[in-house]
Amino acid sequence: MAGMNADAINDFMGKAFPGSGGGVEQADPDRVVCRIRYDPSQLRPGGTLSGPTMMGLADRAMYALIFAAIGEVPLAVTTSLTINFLRKPKPADLIAECRMLKLGKTLAVGDVMIRSDGERQPCAHAVVTYSIPPKTLSP
Amino acid sequence: MAGMNADAINDFMGKAFPGSGGGVEQADPDRVVCRIRYDPSQLRPGGTLSGPTMMGLADRAMYALIFAAIGEVPLAVTTSLTINFLRKPKPADLIAECRMLKLGKTLAVGDVMIRSDGERQPCAHAVVTYSIPPKTLSP
Amino acid sequence: MAGMNADAINDFMGKAFPGSGGGVEQADPDRVVCRIRYDPSQLRPGGTLSGPTMMGLADRAMYALIFAAIGEVPLAVTTSLTINFLRKPKPADLIAECRMLKLGKTLAVGDVMIRSDGERQPCAHAVVTYSIPPKTLSP
Amino acid sequence: MAGMNADAINDFMGKAFPGSGGGVEQADPDRVVCRIRYDPSQLRPGGTLSGPTMMGLADRAMYALIFAAIGEVPLAVTTSLTINFLRKPKPADLIAECRMLKLGKTLAVGDVMIRSDGERQPCAHAVVTYSIPPKTLSP
Repeated sequence: MAGMNADAINDFMGKAFPGSGGGVEQADPDRVVCRIRYDPSQLRPGGTLSGPTMMGLADRAMYALIFAAIGEVPLAVTTSLTINFLRKPKPADLIAECRMLKLGKTLAVGDVMIRSDGERQPCAHAVVTYSIPPKTLSP
Repeated sequence: MAGMNADAINDFMGKAFPGSGGGVEQADPDRVVCRIRYDPSQLRPGGTLSGPTMMGLADRAMYALIFAAIGEVPLAVTTSLTINFLRKPKPADLIAECRMLKLGKTLAVGDVMIRSDGERQPCAHAVVTYSIPPKTLSP
Repeated sequence: MAGMNADAINDFMGKAFPGSGGGVEQADPDRVVCRIRYDPSQLRPGGTLSGPTMMGLADRAMYALIFAAIGEVPLAVTTSLTINFLRKPKPADLIAECRMLKLGKTLAVGDVMIRSDGERQPCAHAVVTYSIPPKTLSP
Repeated sequence: MAGMNADAINDFMGKAFPGSGGGVEQADPDRVVCRIRYDPSQLRPGGTLSGPTMMGLADRAMYALIFAAIGEVPLAVTTSLTINFLRKPKPADLIAECRMLKLGKTLAVGDVMIRSDGERQPCAHAVVTYSIPPKTLSP
């Protein structure tokens, strides 16, 4: 199965997760870049973007990377995620850069660096593992 | 500072996170139980409750546990979270049981078992670390 | 394949890892208890037992738990391990209690609580994932 | 306190951990490279280098990186470590490349890529967090 480009991944995600969209800006087989728009409603006490917002972004970036690498596998599921919150995000878009550490037949592992748009230092770093279903189960 | 009971924690969370609520059902200094209501809008492809929903629940359960142990520290922030997704959740409420592994002066570590309501086997397990700000910074 | 008892697991480990031994004291299909003897040569600056000693113990406890659950699978390999160091261990034996969180066909996940012998509070907590090879690959 | 170079770090480690040595080959304030020599006695069933060997290497590389960044802090201790084993290592030296993700006053977070010497693909990836003691406690 051929990998997908950013437009195709965003198209899929827009249908699968109405209202959230994909936000994929670059998509290569070993690296994707995703953006989520700054939304003041996601702020928590202290003015910080919520942890779950960043966890969801890391999770989605790795999902997109698997699509970029091997094509549409909607039933790929997260098996584990480890995130370290490093710095308070700025009131700005968040940019996630995800690279593939291992793409096996049944497991894929990637790491994700999350930065506020325009910043050099990361505000979070995650390692995400997905289970890839046997091809016969994919539509 | 004295620990808070479930009602007091839910009251705080309802104000701090309008629309999400607290869901704390039991609160002791070393263990809390939180519930989130089943909401079909959170389903992802395959009919599974989303990973971010469970990550947010684990994060919130540990936040509540810190309040239960030492009182209101709104500026406590997650420093790391590791979650393993173990089984597909049922179409039911999720129940998180969080216990304190370490409560230090500046760091608290807990683990969280997440089950579908009525099930014995967990659908996810998380370890969550919070940084606790010096008391003078808390309101 | 039938699960193994503590003696059988220790016998296997003594042959597979000469010089280290097994240290399995209890073995049930969903829980094992392992001990490592206190050895002053493992101390690091500050008089603390080394982190790698505890990581190795957590890893071995989960390996033993898989044997206790499904029998001898020497080629089971660790795919991930997350450990939180909680308290400075005492100058005493370390006791690891490992319980099964999920035993799937290809992945097993367990968590491990490590305590100094005689202490109630844990000095470390780990989550360990193993990949279980297809049975035809096992001797 | 000034950061240390590779020779100074190896000198410290050779005294602190007799018999294991430092193995630091490059040391900058935001990146170190460490090597451990291939030693057939560390093999486990299946001919693989043991997990604890790689966990110990990741832990040591982050310890060295803190020394490279801020100088000698022997009482810095690991607070958490997450490692993903990605590929079976070759029968060769292991090379760990550790970069700083965050250097705070009390916590430092880094990630470590471990490769077999001469290989491009990593055999393990780790995220390591250290607690840095207040300076008055350091010698």
